[in-house]
Amino acid sequence: MSLQTFSQHYRQRIDALLLQHIEALPELSPNLKAAMRHGLVLGGKRVRPFLVYATGSMLGVEEALLDGPAAAIECIHAYSLIHDDLPAMDDDDLRRGHPTVHKAFDEATAVLAGDALQTLAFSILADHAFPDALRTQQVKMLSVLAKASGYAGMCGGQALDLAAEGQHVGLQALEQIHRHKTGALIECAVMLGALCRENIDTATIEALKKYAAAIGLAFQVQDDILDVTGDTETLGKPQGSDQALDKSTYPALLGLDAARAMAQDLHQQALAALKSLPYNTEILSAFADYIIERTY
Amino acid sequence: MSLQTFSQHYRQRIDALLLQHIEALPELSPNLKAAMRHGLVLGGKRVRPFLVYATGSMLGVEEALLDGPAAAIECIHAYSLIHDDLPAMDDDDLRRGHPTVHKAFDEATAVLAGDALQTLAFSILADHAFPDALRTQQVKMLSVLAKASGYAGMCGGQALDLAAEGQHVGLQALEQIHRHKTGALIECAVMLGALCRENIDTATIEALKKYAAAIGLAFQVQDDILDVTGDTETLGKPQGSDQALDKSTYPALLGLDAARAMAQDLHQQALAALKSLPYNTEILSAFADYIIERTY
Repeated sequence: MSLQTFSQHYRQRIDALLLQHIEALPELSPNLKAAMRHGLVLGGKRVRPFLVYATGSMLGVEEALLDGPAAAIECIHAYSLIHDDLPAMDDDDLRRGHPTVHKAFDEATAVLAGDALQTLAFSILADHAFPDALRTQQVKMLSVLAKASGYAGMCGGQALDLAAEGQHVGLQALEQIHRHKTGALIECAVMLGALCRENIDTATIEALKKYAAAIGLAFQVQDDILDVTGDTETLGKPQGSDQALDKSTYPALLGLDAARAMAQDLHQQALAALKSLPYNTEILSAFADYIIERTY
Repeated sequence: MSLQTFSQHYRQRIDALLLQHIEALPELSPNLKAAMRHGLVLGGKRVRPFLVYATGSMLGVEEALLDGPAAAIECIHAYSLIHDDLPAMDDDDLRRGHPTVHKAFDEATAVLAGDALQTLAFSILADHAFPDALRTQQVKMLSVLAKASGYAGMCGGQALDLAAEGQHVGLQALEQIHRHKTGALIECAVMLGALCRENIDTATIEALKKYAAAIGLAFQVQDDILDVTGDTETLGKPQGSDQALDKSTYPALLGLDAARAMAQDLHQQALAALKSLPYNTEILSAFADYIIERTY
């Protein structure tokens, strides 16, 4: 199956699933529910659910088992975007070409929608119908998701990112920001997919972690490159917004050519990690290619 | 054991535990870590952990098992206070007599500290050392905690509360706000304690739910009464702050005497629910007494 066919199939599946999870909420507060839907369903590349499905499928896990982790991690991602866009944080009015949640609703509702989407992630994962044989791995999934999202992962990365604004941070500090802010959740997506396979072995876990770490960072380097070379319409956000915020980026620190070389190097690391796996790694491999070839 | 001895013992235990959980976090972002500590460790009545310990102890659960759920639910409570205090929400400068997190730090840090404390709650509960025999109930605990905290519980209640500000809502709407905003987490605390007991039976669960629903609402009615009759120093927040915000309260809707009668009635419902239980309900019963006798 081609990457495009695979990702289109799972993108439709995850979009439908996320909508179902929102529709299943009671009518308690239609405003909050609409804000959660706005934040969650507006689109986006669904990279994290894709990685859950791609990893799980490679390991022979049936797709229904992967639905819970895939939906859960996208809820975490969506909540983080809502809060990152708040006036006190990055103060963004547009996200994926649409008004951000605090613009479409208000700030209090955006805080609550983010909060409730974070909770929904854990709710979905805890309520997902795993067989008893996977119960211990389900608890591990909940643990992995929490660790990747929280202080030691995404939240901590966002704190570092905010502290770095207007500062000229070095390459090591920049990598620390990205490994936490975006890398942790990318790695988590791959781990969730792997943990849906009964008795998953340590060697596979370790190889997948290396793959995920490499593509997670490559994704960010490419994002930084696109902020310089892309155009506003294709990106769905203002081109040059990182520069405008005086954010440290790989092109700013390394120059554009060296940033591109770094993305290529990470790409090779990702492919090398996959080589050690006794599975059909076609989709994960094609995804690593896509990351550094994409234009938005 | 008296309520005072019991609650002092567990208050010290939970305070120490929460501090340990914060100290165990890596040094990634000292600022964010300090803000989480500020929000979590500043004090407060620790009502929810108390209910976890009181319920679990009554059912014969060893206290070490209860530590995880107790710490987790207090993290949820602390996160909700940090976000509720934000300028876009209730805009409070003081909490328990100390500067709120966005005052002591800044708004972005307060959003992130709340976010990370919510995540920490699920992290603690997923990582807690339950025996394998409790694995399925551990997943249930994670589910119960998520449901009580999220859209269908506390978050939804806060959304209703914000929407009701400046509106004159009726008694039914007020009860709906409180059952979600504070009641859901009180009930959850009791459920978490119960779920630490292996093979807990449905009859016990149902009786405890009734008890928790009654004390949860009684707690709020008494809070409203104290906002009218208490003084700022004892309360640790400005007396009359509900009135100043033009919030609907039980005394405002019913008059002070009828609000007091309602608290008494809920107190009786709580005691009646405990009567059906074949356990020593002394502590839970004394806690129901305390709720309507307390002055802060």
